[in-house]
Amino acid sequence: MKPGRVELMRIESDVLKGNAAGDPHVRTVPVYLPPSYDDQPGRRFPSAYVLTGFTGRGRMLLNDNLWNPPLDARMDALVAAGCGELILVMPDCATRYGGSQYLDSSATGLYETHLVKELIPLVDRRYRTIDAREHRAILGKSSGGYGALVQGMRHPEVFGALACHSGDMYFEYCYRGDVPKFCARVQNAGGLRAWFEGFEAAHQKKQEDLVALNILGMAAAYSPNSVAPLGIDLPCDLESGAFRADVWERWLEHDPIRMLERHIDALRSMKLLFLDCGIRDEWHLHLGMRLFAGRLEALGLTHEREEFDDGHMNVQYRYDVSLPKIATAVGA
Amino acid sequence: MKPGRVELMRIESDVLKGNAAGDPHVRTVPVYLPPSYDDQPGRRFPSAYVLTGFTGRGRMLLNDNLWNPPLDARMDALVAAGCGELILVMPDCATRYGGSQYLDSSATGLYETHLVKELIPLVDRRYRTIDAREHRAILGKSSGGYGALVQGMRHPEVFGALACHSGDMYFEYCYRGDVPKFCARVQNAGGLRAWFEGFEAAHQKKQEDLVALNILGMAAAYSPNSVAPLGIDLPCDLESGAFRADVWERWLEHDPIRMLERHIDALRSMKLLFLDCGIRDEWHLHLGMRLFAGRLEALGLTHEREEFDDGHMNVQYRYDVSLPKIATAVGA
Amino acid sequence: MKPGRVELMRIESDVLKGNAAGDPHVRTVPVYLPPSYDDQPGRRFPSAYVLTGFTGRGRMLLNDNLWNPPLDARMDALVAAGCGELILVMPDCATRYGGSQYLDSSATGLYETHLVKELIPLVDRRYRTIDAREHRAILGKSSGGYGALVQGMRHPEVFGALACHSGDMYFEYCYRGDVPKFCARVQNAGGLRAWFEGFEAAHQKKQEDLVALNILGMAAAYSPNSVAPLGIDLPCDLESGAFRADVWERWLEHDPIRMLERHIDALRSMKLLFLDCGIRDEWHLHLGMRLFAGRLEALGLTHEREEFDDGHMNVQYRYDVSLPKIATAVGA
Amino acid sequence: MKPGRVELMRIESDVLKGNAAGDPHVRTVPVYLPPSYDDQPGRRFPSAYVLTGFTGRGRMLLNDNLWNPPLDARMDALVAAGCGELILVMPDCATRYGGSQYLDSSATGLYETHLVKELIPLVDRRYRTIDAREHRAILGKSSGGYGALVQGMRHPEVFGALACHSGDMYFEYCYRGDVPKFCARVQNAGGLRAWFEGFEAAHQKKQEDLVALNILGMAAAYSPNSVAPLGIDLPCDLESGAFRADVWERWLEHDPIRMLERHIDALRSMKLLFLDCGIRDEWHLHLGMRLFAGRLEALGLTHEREEFDDGHMNVQYRYDVSLPKIATAVGA
Repeated sequence: MKPGRVELMRIESDVLKGNAAGDPHVRTVPVYLPPSYDDQPGRRFPSAYVLTGFTGRGRMLLNDNLWNPPLDARMDALVAAGCGELILVMPDCATRYGGSQYLDSSATGLYETHLVKELIPLVDRRYRTIDAREHRAILGKSSGGYGALVQGMRHPEVFGALACHSGDMYFEYCYRGDVPKFCARVQNAGGLRAWFEGFEAAHQKKQEDLVALNILGMAAAYSPNSVAPLGIDLPCDLESGAFRADVWERWLEHDPIRMLERHIDALRSMKLLFLDCGIRDEWHLHLGMRLFAGRLEALGLTHEREEFDDGHMNVQYRYDVSLPKIATAVGA
Repeated sequence: MKPGRVELMRIESDVLKGNAAGDPHVRTVPVYLPPSYDDQPGRRFPSAYVLTGFTGRGRMLLNDNLWNPPLDARMDALVAAGCGELILVMPDCATRYGGSQYLDSSATGLYETHLVKELIPLVDRRYRTIDAREHRAILGKSSGGYGALVQGMRHPEVFGALACHSGDMYFEYCYRGDVPKFCARVQNAGGLRAWFEGFEAAHQKKQEDLVALNILGMAAAYSPNSVAPLGIDLPCDLESGAFRADVWERWLEHDPIRMLERHIDALRSMKLLFLDCGIRDEWHLHLGMRLFAGRLEALGLTHEREEFDDGHMNVQYRYDVSLPKIATAVGA
Repeated sequence: MKPGRVELMRIESDVLKGNAAGDPHVRTVPVYLPPSYDDQPGRRFPSAYVLTGFTGRGRMLLNDNLWNPPLDARMDALVAAGCGELILVMPDCATRYGGSQYLDSSATGLYETHLVKELIPLVDRRYRTIDAREHRAILGKSSGGYGALVQGMRHPEVFGALACHSGDMYFEYCYRGDVPKFCARVQNAGGLRAWFEGFEAAHQKKQEDLVALNILGMAAAYSPNSVAPLGIDLPCDLESGAFRADVWERWLEHDPIRMLERHIDALRSMKLLFLDCGIRDEWHLHLGMRLFAGRLEALGLTHEREEFDDGHMNVQYRYDVSLPKIATAVGA
Repeated sequence: MKPGRVELMRIESDVLKGNAAGDPHVRTVPVYLPPSYDDQPGRRFPSAYVLTGFTGRGRMLLNDNLWNPPLDARMDALVAAGCGELILVMPDCATRYGGSQYLDSSATGLYETHLVKELIPLVDRRYRTIDAREHRAILGKSSGGYGALVQGMRHPEVFGALACHSGDMYFEYCYRGDVPKFCARVQNAGGLRAWFEGFEAAHQKKQEDLVALNILGMAAAYSPNSVAPLGIDLPCDLESGAFRADVWERWLEHDPIRMLERHIDALRSMKLLFLDCGIRDEWHLHLGMRLFAGRLEALGLTHEREEFDDGHMNVQYRYDVSLPKIATAVGA
């Protein structure tokens, strides 16, 4: 069967121009056009936005590997096996802090706005999508699963289906335990700027530094403060080392577990609400997923949930499960 | 120089008889008698109780190693170098859950009572100690550092000096992050009993299980509940997986950081209040120590604090620093 | 500055058709065309073949990463900084056994022939290269460094310069220690086919299996035997477990350390002979490099050698050192 | 049941006096006396010598652990379950290089002589043993398994039964792969003396250094050379880094796989020849054991062999299998 093809769309963002983190406002967004796209020039296709995890950006979904096909090849294989055709869009919402959680933040930039108000309209203008929520989905893994779930909750007028793979939720379990690791690492490096500069300069990024970066990145997304160093309130006091409950409370406002109650109608409106997670997730996200699904159930909200026997990393093969469901949900 | 010698004292405990965890009530407690003990039969010596960490008991302080001398050899060397002579007592407060934190608990046994009301009087009867707080010290590492600090705070009538090496404190940082690890591990094993039986039966104890055991052991010490399974309230709901803030609040009552304010006089009365910790402590106990020391300072309480460039494990060499200070503080 | 661009060249190989390992004979080879390529349509450019390591293929050189730019972006930055312009060709010589070492083998396929007789002529026909050894270089890392060194030695009529980064050599140190790991792993899995099928089916490739695959891949390249299982003679007897010195001797024939003496003229003819390696290379390749360089020196063969303080993995930044030297060596 | 008891026997060795490594010639050797020893003062008992692994000495067999009983408690439990009573002797043949392999060496000391000519006669004089090969066994684990096997082969006039747990053999697989690790580690540390002094001074012994020490220790045992640095010929040239086949050949003379043919009568004379190993042994010693056992079988030599599903470390529980067999073999 003829494969689809990928275009690298260049987007010059207005809302990211002059962003606080100093990240580029021009981004490259891969767009996968399915096999029939060129052959049927009058046909429009449903679209799905695929969000990467922390330290990722859209292009990485196309990274080659001997045993893990890139997303385009994966989608080609699914279509060959009968899956409905979709345009896949792979946004770039990365920041120098590792990511944006696909949220607007004074510390990083207006990534939610960029995604919803800039990127989607541009895609709809440039490609033959079906510009309607019923035919537009959002999905992703890890921080991308978080983004899919949160953007789905906040923008039901835009998205009609969502899939959340190993998504960040129940911050009590997925982030809180890393706060002291962040604190200790940064203190031992001589403070926030010294640590961050050292991190950026290092050829090899150490695991302990990536753990610390994760906390910095989340703080940049959840607790920005334009008058704090780097524009970020941290969940610990770097002087005393103490946990900051006030900052933590701001984080929790972004926890899907807590957001859920505020977005019941949005969640009910989804044609597909799919969640999955590995039961050996190193960030315990399966525990969060179970709590989230438990509340969905208690509220009578339809959803699909799957667990699988794996950890958090290298689970792209789970797209083979979600994409056909997405295609069915948003298909014409 | 003539070395000291060790007697293995057998103690049949009344208070541990029939303890809930089913652990033996007869224990073996090594007692180190310093070089002059036999030569000067009329002389009495100050004593120091040395508490081991989690999964330890007194005899392990005598474990041989090619590069880490056992405690008796270490003390011999210190005495040879001019350190005052001490009787060292190495209590056994181990439980099948890995330890007791040297506390009374309905889930394990009355280990605080055993230590303070049974063991110490027996030692004072059997050996030529100086039976007075001014001449009795307590010290230990990790859970043993916790025990030394807490027993010192709670029993200033018994102990006149204390040294806390890498002691458990600021539970927010040293335990909380392991609660989801415990929850996930136990759930995946099929529940608490299934997991614990599997753990006990395994020839090789896995790191993830030791992490989980640590949480179970702390729950046994801090949040016993005679009507709960195993007699222990856990800091998470094993069904839903949710964190239990009510149980956690009970743990915090045992956090030295919080206990401090209730024991100011006791702390002030110490002839030595020594704390140290490695700045790469894997449980972030150096962050707790700094907070603890900061409050001591704010309250004008005299203490000594040292930091060293190491992690949490295999730091017995720090006894070379504390024992001479102890000997000076409780010396005749 | 205007960036270069990448074309994904499709090559249908005659010599790989029906290869023993069952790998595809149609390959995708990225070709980087430098900034001036389109602007100066009458100009011809020197070319360099960049070989990936084990488990790699050319496209992976373009994999995106937040902190490690893909090869095209890296080359763009070098050119912007004054480096001579090169056409970079990224061959795909991967096999299901993880790689081919860029050699002809009855167990995998005729990858050396494919590279030298098929791919290079096709590139020279399709792109405006300067088709002369003086203007054609070969370089790579790890197994790709091996490939660059060996192909340079064997085809001085084709290549006029070479750079070998952390290249496989001194098999005594880089492979021999993994033979028992291979043997044990495969035996415990129930034999070669059972192990290999399990490996191929696994979502997550375990480190022990990748170590074993490395030995299988090397055996496929160095000691093929069309009548043995999988067409491969192994360096151990899977029944008894014993090391096979006869097979090992065949491997050694492919060791650059031993090949050197047979290719002195070729090595002398290189306009650039560059070697580097990290001094903490996990396969001890820096020890091999030092031995190789020592023999070059003893033979009076000009070369450049660098050591750097790093291990084996994620050292793509070393291309920033070699590519400008390559560009100078093969520049017009 | 009444437990046995342990005496710490002090032995002042003549043959170790002034040994080249500067290790003490006075050693402490624990002797376990079984439950009936004191009650039946006219009775004599068979004896067994238990040899520890690398970096061990006899006293470590008594190290306490919450889940792994020390050897005396283990033996008490076996006797309580019906095992024949044995006197267990735990020699100290440790050296500053981590061990002696229980061999005579000019680089360390005459440990074989010490064991066979000094220690055993002393034990037989001091304790009520049955001084006859039929009633004397030797066993051990890892380097101690090597020692048991080799001393049994070389001294059938002394030992009538042997058990070898996870013993060093087939040096091709258990040592050779670590030679480059040794070379790289020592070179990066600035040479043999600089590395070794740094190692001895370090509070925490790093895994890479213990791997290197293992090679140094084996070289001290297998390839001493009184005119070489430290009195030791190394299996690699520290200047060039090259493997030294001549030194390696000297090592192989000590490989049980090769020694076997020279000691067939001794092996045939054993009342028990027991070997076991975990099938996931990190040094691949199970592969060596299978080869060794295969040759025994080919030669018609009776033996028992067991494999178990574990690695190399913490397998003291295997003494529960061997000691009853030993007791039966050398019982009165």
